[in-house]
Amino acid sequence: MTVFALRDAGDLAENATAYVSLEPCNHFGRTPPCTEALIKAKVRKVVVGMVDPNPLVASKGIDRLRAAGIEVTFGVEEALCKSLNEAFVHLMLTKKPLLALRYSISLNGQVSDHLGEGATDSGGYYSKLLQEYDAVILSSTSLSDKLSLPTSQEPGANQPLRIVVAGSSNATLDVPGVAAGVNSKLIIFTDKESGVESKGSLEGVETVILDKINMDAILDYCKRQGMCSVLLDFTGNAYDFEELVKESVEQNLLQKILVEVLPLWCEGNDRNARFPLDMAEVHKIKNLQPKVYNKSIILEGHL
Amino acid sequence: MTVFALRDAGDLAENATAYVSLEPCNHFGRTPPCTEALIKAKVRKVVVGMVDPNPLVASKGIDRLRAAGIEVTFGVEEALCKSLNEAFVHLMLTKKPLLALRYSISLNGQVSDHLGEGATDSGGYYSKLLQEYDAVILSSTSLSDKLSLPTSQEPGANQPLRIVVAGSSNATLDVPGVAAGVNSKLIIFTDKESGVESKGSLEGVETVILDKINMDAILDYCKRQGMCSVLLDFTGNAYDFEELVKESVEQNLLQKILVEVLPLWCEGNDRNARFPLDMAEVHKIKNLQPKVYNKSIILEGHL
Repeated sequence: MTVFALRDAGDLAENATAYVSLEPCNHFGRTPPCTEALIKAKVRKVVVGMVDPNPLVASKGIDRLRAAGIEVTFGVEEALCKSLNEAFVHLMLTKKPLLALRYSISLNGQVSDHLGEGATDSGGYYSKLLQEYDAVILSSTSLSDKLSLPTSQEPGANQPLRIVVAGSSNATLDVPGVAAGVNSKLIIFTDKESGVESKGSLEGVETVILDKINMDAILDYCKRQGMCSVLLDFTGNAYDFEELVKESVEQNLLQKILVEVLPLWCEGNDRNARFPLDMAEVHKIKNLQPKVYNKSIILEGHL
Repeated sequence: MTVFALRDAGDLAENATAYVSLEPCNHFGRTPPCTEALIKAKVRKVVVGMVDPNPLVASKGIDRLRAAGIEVTFGVEEALCKSLNEAFVHLMLTKKPLLALRYSISLNGQVSDHLGEGATDSGGYYSKLLQEYDAVILSSTSLSDKLSLPTSQEPGANQPLRIVVAGSSNATLDVPGVAAGVNSKLIIFTDKESGVESKGSLEGVETVILDKINMDAILDYCKRQGMCSVLLDFTGNAYDFEELVKESVEQNLLQKILVEVLPLWCEGNDRNARFPLDMAEVHKIKNLQPKVYNKSIILEGHL
C-alpha cells in the first residue's frame, strides 16, 4: 500500500512525513519492499502505527529506515491501528484468516434473514461490511431466486469472494440458476454425496468437493488465495451452517461476531431456525460494543 | 418539587432565576401552587423546559407568573424535558401510568433471568431503574427463596411498590415464605381460583383478588395510588406474564421496552421460556437506542 501511495504522491513525498498504520516491510512480498520505496522517495520522517507482527518484518523495517537516516516514530494510536489491521495480525499470529460470524436477531430473540432498512445500500453497514472482508460464506439458498448473491454497493468496492456451502442434506441447490447471479468468482464447497458434481460445470464457478464440508478446509482454501478475513453470513438455510458454526467455536476458528438487532418483535421465519449452538457450555462474548445503524443496533464482539 | 426547592433556597431565591423542567402549576395538588411560591420568593426569572400537558395547568402557570411581573422563557431543552417527564406526560394525556417492560436476552436469542455483572449494585442500571419507577410487577417466583424481591441500592432511593402476579395456574406461590423478604409494601394480584386467599393475610402484604388477573386492573390500581410509572420485570415464571404482556401490547397499554443484551451465547433456562409474544403480527419498536452498561448492552425503545 505504501508503494502505491508513494507512486501517487510523486515528487511531493520528498522531505514529507509519511503516516502508516503498519510498519513498512523490508522484504519482497506482493509488492517490492516498502522501506526501499520510502527511502527512494526521500521522505524525511515516518510515523508508524504498529510494529508488524509478521516475523519476516518484526522491526526490521524500522531499522532499515533509520539506517537510511529517516526519522521514525512508532506506536502512535497503536490500539486503533491494531483494530484496523486486526485480520492481518490474526493471520500472522495464527496462520489462519480471521473468521467473523454475522447474523440478525429480533428483539424477541428470533434469528432472522432480514437486514435493517438501507443496510445493503451504498453507505449501509452491510454494504460496507462486504467490502471489508476478503470472502463471504453463504448458504446454498443464496443460489436460488429468493436471495441474490450479496454485493457491496460502495463505489469501487473490492467484492468479496463468494463461497457457497451446499451439503448433501440440501435439496435446494440450483446450480443451473447460478449463472445469472454471478458477477464475480464463486466457489461452491460441497460433499461427495451432494451430486453437485454431476450437474456440470459453469463458467466463473469453481466447485470444491470434500469428504465432509468443514471450516478448516474453507479457511485453508482462503489462506492459499492470500486472504486475511472471512465472513460467515448466517442467512438462508440454517442447516448449511449448523455444523460449521459449531466446529468453528469448538476449534477456536471463530474470532468475531457481528449481530444486527432488528427493531422488531416478530415470529421466527418458516425455517424455524434458532441460533445453531446447541451446547451445554456458556460462551462469553468479549468487548461487546453497539453502533446505531439507521433503526437497528449493530453489536460487535469477540470470542 | 418547586415548592421544596424554594424552601431549601430560602432568601437566596430573591432576584434569582429558577430553572424548571415542567411548567409550574397554578392549582392545589399534592403541594400548594408552585406559581404562588415562586412569586412569594420574589424570583426575577423562570426558565421552563416544557409546558404542562395537564389541562388543569396548560399555560395558566406561565400566565400567572407573567401577570406577577416575572420574566418567563419556555421550551428550553424541550425534548430532554419531555423525556425526563415522560411518565407524567403519559399519565396526563392518557389517564394511565406509563408501562415499561424489561427483560434480558442472550446474544443467541434466549430470554434469560440473568442480569449483567453489577446491574443490581449501587450505580448499576437495574438498581437505578427500580428507583425510576413507582411500581414493579414481578413473577410469583420472586416470593420463593430462589429470587429475592428486587430493591434499589441507590442511596436514599424511593423503593418501588412491589406487585406480584400469581394466577391459579401457578403452584409455586409460597405465601408463608413472603414475610422474610418484605421490606416495603407488597401487593399480590391473584385470581379466585388460586387459593391464595385461604392462606391467610400477612402483615405488609395486600392481596387483590380479581376474576382474572389483567393489566388494566393493575394499572388502574397504580393510578389510584398516584403512580405515574410501572415496570414489568420479565424474570421468573414466564407463564405469569404470558397473558399480561400479550394484552398490554394488544390494548396499547405498553409504551416502552428495556432489553438487556447479555454478552453470552447460552442455553435457555429450564423454564424453557421464549419471549411471550406468539402473534402473527410484527411489532415495530421505535427509537431503539443502546447504552453500554458494564459488559452488557441496554437497548431502550418505544412501541
